[in-house]
Amino acid sequence: MTKLTRRGVLGAGAAGAAAGLAPGASAAARKRTRRADVVVVGAGLAGLTAARGIRRGGKSVLVLEAARRAGGRVWSHALGGGEVSERGGTFVGPTQDHVIDLAQAYGIDTFPTYNEGSNVAYIDGDRVEWSDTGPTGTAPPDPAILPELAATVTLLNEMSKEVPVDAPWQAEQALEYDGQTLETWVEDNSTTQRYRNLVPLATRPIFGTEPRDLSLLFVLFYIAASGDEEHVGTFERNFNTREGAQMFRFEGSTSALVERMARELGRRLLLRQPVRRIVQGRGGVRVVTDKLSVRAKRVVVAVPPALAGRIDYRPLLPFERDQLTQRMGQGTLTKVSASYETPFWRDAGYTGTGLSTSGFVSATFDGSPPDGGPGVVFGFVGGDKAREYERLSKGERRSRILAEFAQFWGAEAERPLEFWDTRWPAQRWNRGGPVGIHGAGSLVANGAALRAPVGRIHWAGTETSTYWNGYMDGAVRSGERAAEEVLAEL
Amino acid sequence: MTKLTRRGVLGAGAAGAAAGLAPGASAAARKRTRRADVVVVGAGLAGLTAARGIRRGGKSVLVLEAARRAGGRVWSHALGGGEVSERGGTFVGPTQDHVIDLAQAYGIDTFPTYNEGSNVAYIDGDRVEWSDTGPTGTAPPDPAILPELAATVTLLNEMSKEVPVDAPWQAEQALEYDGQTLETWVEDNSTTQRYRNLVPLATRPIFGTEPRDLSLLFVLFYIAASGDEEHVGTFERNFNTREGAQMFRFEGSTSALVERMARELGRRLLLRQPVRRIVQGRGGVRVVTDKLSVRAKRVVVAVPPALAGRIDYRPLLPFERDQLTQRMGQGTLTKVSASYETPFWRDAGYTGTGLSTSGFVSATFDGSPPDGGPGVVFGFVGGDKAREYERLSKGERRSRILAEFAQFWGAEAERPLEFWDTRWPAQRWNRGGPVGIHGAGSLVANGAALRAPVGRIHWAGTETSTYWNGYMDGAVRSGERAAEEVLAEL
Repeated sequence: MTKLTRRGVLGAGAAGAAAGLAPGASAAARKRTRRADVVVVGAGLAGLTAARGIRRGGKSVLVLEAARRAGGRVWSHALGGGEVSERGGTFVGPTQDHVIDLAQAYGIDTFPTYNEGSNVAYIDGDRVEWSDTGPTGTAPPDPAILPELAATVTLLNEMSKEVPVDAPWQAEQALEYDGQTLETWVEDNSTTQRYRNLVPLATRPIFGTEPRDLSLLFVLFYIAASGDEEHVGTFERNFNTREGAQMFRFEGSTSALVERMARELGRRLLLRQPVRRIVQGRGGVRVVTDKLSVRAKRVVVAVPPALAGRIDYRPLLPFERDQLTQRMGQGTLTKVSASYETPFWRDAGYTGTGLSTSGFVSATFDGSPPDGGPGVVFGFVGGDKAREYERLSKGERRSRILAEFAQFWGAEAERPLEFWDTRWPAQRWNRGGPVGIHGAGSLVANGAALRAPVGRIHWAGTETSTYWNGYMDGAVRSGERAAEEVLAEL
Repeated sequence: MTKLTRRGVLGAGAAGAAAGLAPGASAAARKRTRRADVVVVGAGLAGLTAARGIRRGGKSVLVLEAARRAGGRVWSHALGGGEVSERGGTFVGPTQDHVIDLAQAYGIDTFPTYNEGSNVAYIDGDRVEWSDTGPTGTAPPDPAILPELAATVTLLNEMSKEVPVDAPWQAEQALEYDGQTLETWVEDNSTTQRYRNLVPLATRPIFGTEPRDLSLLFVLFYIAASGDEEHVGTFERNFNTREGAQMFRFEGSTSALVERMARELGRRLLLRQPVRRIVQGRGGVRVVTDKLSVRAKRVVVAVPPALAGRIDYRPLLPFERDQLTQRMGQGTLTKVSASYETPFWRDAGYTGTGLSTSGFVSATFDGSPPDGGPGVVFGFVGGDKAREYERLSKGERRSRILAEFAQFWGAEAERPLEFWDTRWPAQRWNRGGPVGIHGAGSLVANGAALRAPVGRIHWAGTETSTYWNGYMDGAVRSGERAAEEVLAEL
C-alpha cells in the first residue's frame, strides 16, 4: 500500500489523521484515511451508547453515521417555538432503567405521559370509552372480547417464561413455537372473530406487522424481554401506558438525549458517511465509506440487521449471519401526527388514546410537550394498514387520518395547525420500524448469529438486546454490552 | 459533469466507450463510462436470456456480472478429461420447454437422467428399496406413510389450482394460506410422526428449507408454477425423476449453455463488476460499479431479490419493494458430490437415488456424464441439515457424507476419486439457493413488488417467474419476459 502523508480534509480526529490509497477500492479512488481504536457504525442510541462506553473505557472511537442526522429511530419534528414532537422512539416505562439512567446522566428527566380521562376504541364499529385506571389498562373492556383477551394474554405470558431472553432458540419448545405464526396460534386459541380482529391492533403498533408475519417464538421472546433481570416480562407492559412502556416521556423529547450524546462526541461523529465495506485483516479492521477509509482494532456495527446485511464484508461473514439478515426485515410502521393550538381532547375528558380495529390508525397517544402547548396527538399505522396508506395521495392521507382523529375526539381534530407523517420504511437509513422482525423459522435457524461477534466485528442495535428488544432501552443495553465486549479485547 | 475523452480500459463495447467523472461518487474516484441501450445486471440464465432477447430486438446491451464467472446458480466442477459435473442447476423435465428450447438453439441436447434399477430410502432407520416405475414414483412405497402422503399431495395439488401463478396474493384464500407455515398445515392434516418426518425430505432439496420456513401460500404457488400454460402444476413434478423435473440433463452440462450464451455476448459481458448503485434520471439510468459508470435507457436487474436489495437505488424504490427484499432470503442448500472410476451403484442395480429422513443428505441423484465415466453421485443437504453440516470440519464433512453414500450403495462409496461440496449460501454472489423463499406473510404483503417495473428498472430472475419459479426454466422465462418489457419501451 502506497503511503501518503497528505492531511485528511476532516481535520484531526480522535486518533490523528492521515491519507492514502485505499486498497480494494478503484485504483483511481483516493480515500482519506483515519484511525481509531474502535469504529462504531451507526449513530442511533445503540451506537452512541457504545461509543460513550468505549470512550469511558479509555479508548478512541470514531462513529460513522450514514444519515444527515444522528438518532436512528429517534427523530423529531420541530413544532416551532423551540418545541419538538417525536417522529420515532417516544416513550419509556418501568424496568427500562438503562435508557432512563442514561438520560439522567445527561440531565434529562422524564415526565408522565398525559393519561387523564377516557380512552376511546372502535371495535368492529362499536364505540367504547373507559378509563385505564380500570383492570384492563389500555385494553378496551369490551365484554365480548375480554374473556378471550385475558385468557390468551395470560397464556402467552406463561409460555414466555420458558423462553430464555438470551437464547430463545434454546427454549424447550422452540421448534414448535417457531414453526407457527402468531396468527395460527390465535386461531387455535380463540373462537370469536371479534377478538381475532383485535389482535392486529396490538401487532401493528408494537411490531409494525400483522399477526401472520410474526413467529410465535419471537412474540414469546418479545414478551419475556419486556422486563428486566428482576421483573418478569409481560405482554401488557408492551401496550399499556399506566405501568407500561408508554408511561413516561423525556423532557425536551428523546432527541434531546441524542443531541447531547452527539455533541459530546464532537468531531468523533461523522455524518453522511454510509459504510460500504468492512475488511478484516490480521492486524485490524478497515471500515470504508464513499470518502473515508478508517483503520481500527475493532468495529461495532450498530444498525438494524437488514441494513447491516447490505455492507460488503471481507472476508464473508459466516452464512448463518448473512442469511439472518436476508430474512429479518424491519417492521412496516408509519407514524401520523397532528398539532393543535391546545390539546382540546383533554378538555373534553379524553386521554388522547384511541384504538380502532378498522381505521388506518390502530392506536393513538397524546404527544404534546410537557406544558401542553401546542397539543400534539399521534397515531400508529402499521402492517397492512401502512401499505394501504402508502397507496393514498398526500391529500387523502391527511384527510383520512384527520377524519379518524375526529371520530375519536370530535370535529376540532380536522382543523390542525399542522399534519405530518413519518413513513419509516421509506427512510433510506432505517427501511422500516420499530424493530427487525423474526418470521416463522428465523430464530431457530439463525438467531444465534444475531449477537455473536465475527472476528473483530461486534453487533449492537436494539434487535440484539436481551431485554426490551425493539425499544430504546434495548438499544442502550446493546450499546453497553457491545462496549464491554470490545473493551475486553483491547 | 466534467467530460473527459480518455478511452475506457475495457476497450470499445457495444455502444462505444468514454470516460468521465461519475457524479455522486467520491470526488477523487474517476470511473470509466460506457453506454448501451440496456444494462443487464447479473449473468445468470435470466440475465443472459434477457440480454439475448434485447439484442435480437435490435438494441444494444451491456451485461454486468459481479462474479468471476457467468452462470449464477449454474456452475460446474471439472472432473478432468474435459468432463464436468453440475454444482448447481442440473436437471430439466417435461413442461420446461423454455430452457430446453433455448439449449436446442445453441445445439445442446438433453439426455435422460440415469434411472434404471432401485431407489433406496432410509425412513426413520428402515431401509426401503423400490423401482420408480411403480405408482409412487420417486416417493418410497412405505405402507406406513403412503396413505397420508397420497392424501396430502392430492389435497395440496387441488388447493394449488386456486392460486394464480401471476398473482398468488390474489388467491381467494390468500390471507388464510399466507398466515400459516407449511409445517402448521402438515400438522393439521396428518396424524403420524413417521409421515411428518418425511416432509423435510421434500422441502430440503426443493427449497433449501424446513417446512417451518415456508408460507403455505408460497408452497401452493410453487406447485401451481410446476407446469405450463397447458399443463396444470403438480407437486410430484417437483420431486420425481420419471416425468418430473429431474427427468433430463444437458449434454456437456448446464454450464455448456451458459458458456455459449456468454461467448455470444463477447465483450458485452463484463465479469467482476458488482453493481453498487442504480441512479434513475429523467433521461435514462446510470448503473455504477466500483470501476464503471454505464448510461442506458433501461436496466434489467436479474439477480436474486436478497442481492438486488443490496444495491443503492436513487431515488429509493417504493418501500414495498425494499421490504420484499428484506424478507425474501435465499434457501439454505449445499450440494455434496463424489466421483468414482465407474458408477458402481448401477452394476449393483441401483439408480443412484437415495433418500433419508435422518442423514445430512436428504436426496441423491446420479450425476455422471452421459457415457457413465467417471461415475458421479451428488446429494442435497438443505435447511437445518445444511446449517449442521456447516459446523463440521472439512474432514468430518467428507467422512460423514461418504458414510451416508455407503449406507445406500455399499462400502465402495467411501473410496471416491474426489469429494467436493458446493455451499451455496457461502457463495458471495449467490448467498443461498436454490431459490428465494417466501415465509408466512411475505407474498400478501409485498408479492406484487416482485416483478413490477420501477421506472426504468425491470426485474428478472427465476424468483420473478410465473411458471417453474425456482428452476432454470423459470430463469429463462423471466429473462424472456424482461426483454419483452424493455423492448416495448424502447
